[in-house]
Amino acid sequence: MVDEFIYEETVRIYDTDAQGIVHYAGYYRFFTDALEQFATQKTGRKFPLPDDKIWFVVVESNAKYYKSARVGDNLSVGLSPSKLSDKAIRFDFKIRRDGDLLCDGYITQVAIDREKWKSVPIPQDLLDDLTK
Amino acid sequence: MVDEFIYEETVRIYDTDAQGIVHYAGYYRFFTDALEQFATQKTGRKFPLPDDKIWFVVVESNAKYYKSARVGDNLSVGLSPSKLSDKAIRFDFKIRRDGDLLCDGYITQVAIDREKWKSVPIPQDLLDDLTK
Amino acid sequence: MVDEFIYEETVRIYDTDAQGIVHYAGYYRFFTDALEQFATQKTGRKFPLPDDKIWFVVVESNAKYYKSARVGDNLSVGLSPSKLSDKAIRFDFKIRRDGDLLCDGYITQVAIDREKWKSVPIPQDLLDDLTK
Amino acid sequence: MVDEFIYEETVRIYDTDAQGIVHYAGYYRFFTDALEQFATQKTGRKFPLPDDKIWFVVVESNAKYYKSARVGDNLSVGLSPSKLSDKAIRFDFKIRRDGDLLCDGYITQVAIDREKWKSVPIPQDLLDDLTK
Repeated sequence: MVDEFIYEETVRIYDTDAQGIVHYAGYYRFFTDALEQFATQKTGRKFPLPDDKIWFVVVESNAKYYKSARVGDNLSVGLSPSKLSDKAIRFDFKIRRDGDLLCDGYITQVAIDREKWKSVPIPQDLLDDLTK
Repeated sequence: MVDEFIYEETVRIYDTDAQGIVHYAGYYRFFTDALEQFATQKTGRKFPLPDDKIWFVVVESNAKYYKSARVGDNLSVGLSPSKLSDKAIRFDFKIRRDGDLLCDGYITQVAIDREKWKSVPIPQDLLDDLTK
Repeated sequence: MVDEFIYEETVRIYDTDAQGIVHYAGYYRFFTDALEQFATQKTGRKFPLPDDKIWFVVVESNAKYYKSARVGDNLSVGLSPSKLSDKAIRFDFKIRRDGDLLCDGYITQVAIDREKWKSVPIPQDLLDDLTK
Repeated sequence: MVDEFIYEETVRIYDTDAQGIVHYAGYYRFFTDALEQFATQKTGRKFPLPDDKIWFVVVESNAKYYKSARVGDNLSVGLSPSKLSDKAIRFDFKIRRDGDLLCDGYITQVAIDREKWKSVPIPQDLLDDLTK
């Protein structure tokens, strides 16, 4: 997959804080929304709970903030997936407003066996759907 | 206005809690999203911060919960506004999934002068746009 | 129990929104914190997940807002429980700052069998611990 | 300052998601709580809004997740500040439960002139209070 998946988002009042801008942790809501929309479309399954055996859990999150977003802003959230190993996928995000980059970052997810709560290889069909 | 305004929403993982269902306070996110979409469309201005003088603030919120929503559920949020006085509007919400009523409730908002932080009559054009 | 249980809370930046004050739904965080502290102390069990059979779920929430709280404010959250039936308890809250009432409201909870996801009578010891 | 500042936190139901564990973005609440408590104690001023001229804004956030926290868990959040430049401080966090490391990460903050919304040198007294 060479193209970026694009998700459109509107900044809501609860995303902001008393500085008048989106709270730093609020950008993770935008990352999460884009990822869940992307994964649902690509796999046809719920995410991050695709079935009764496999769950995806986050092992790292990161965001850098360049400009501030405000209530009512229309944001474009770009997502690019990368396979890190048989067990881990990194999802990179770029949040833009009218073409300006406001924030970028990533979250890395691994698959676990939800009964044993141990990491397992991502089933091949899910891995293909999410990274190809 | 006799018709209900309908806003479509998807339940995200962060809306849920360890009971596997949407956290009770999470339904207020759905109310807020529907209201901001409705108000922006009807007034052509940002909400709840339409301009530099007038802000809308919440004076009461209420929700009753009948059935539980889960990750990935597609919800329909119905909104019906009612003028309570020259200063206050009540917005009623009904959240449904495949026609089943999951939750209903309301939030009541008043207009304030943001400098004096005192309630003021809602400007007539805003009041009309939001309630007619 | 005639006395109010008091829980001390500090307003954090993420509780606020672009109006510079605590977001209306943020007060439910304060209600929840007070209730979980109260219930843990009274019952010696985790709340709202006291054991593998019984969970408490919220069937109604309500809040009225009189004055605004801001970042760094030290709040006192008063809690008073009332038995509504063998299955339901209502918890009333009053949030004060320096004695001034900022917000009051309630949440009503019922016990469910977590396997069958049906309401059940609250076990007598839990009911006594939470309401006497 | 060589010692770690320690902040005690309890995991609440709203910190968790449908996987039964703390949602990945929820750990930033713990980081924020520890930082606001630390900064308020060290500087005697509100944080991140110490006065009418200077605000602190976040330019990067990061967290790595090793083990999962659950409702009712008592967490210890360790904080260590580092001066990066005259304008930027990095705060490192380690979240532990009974000595086990669950999560670590950091947030980097810069001072801005809140009128001009431009980064400025952190006033020397604030810089000293926060990093020495």
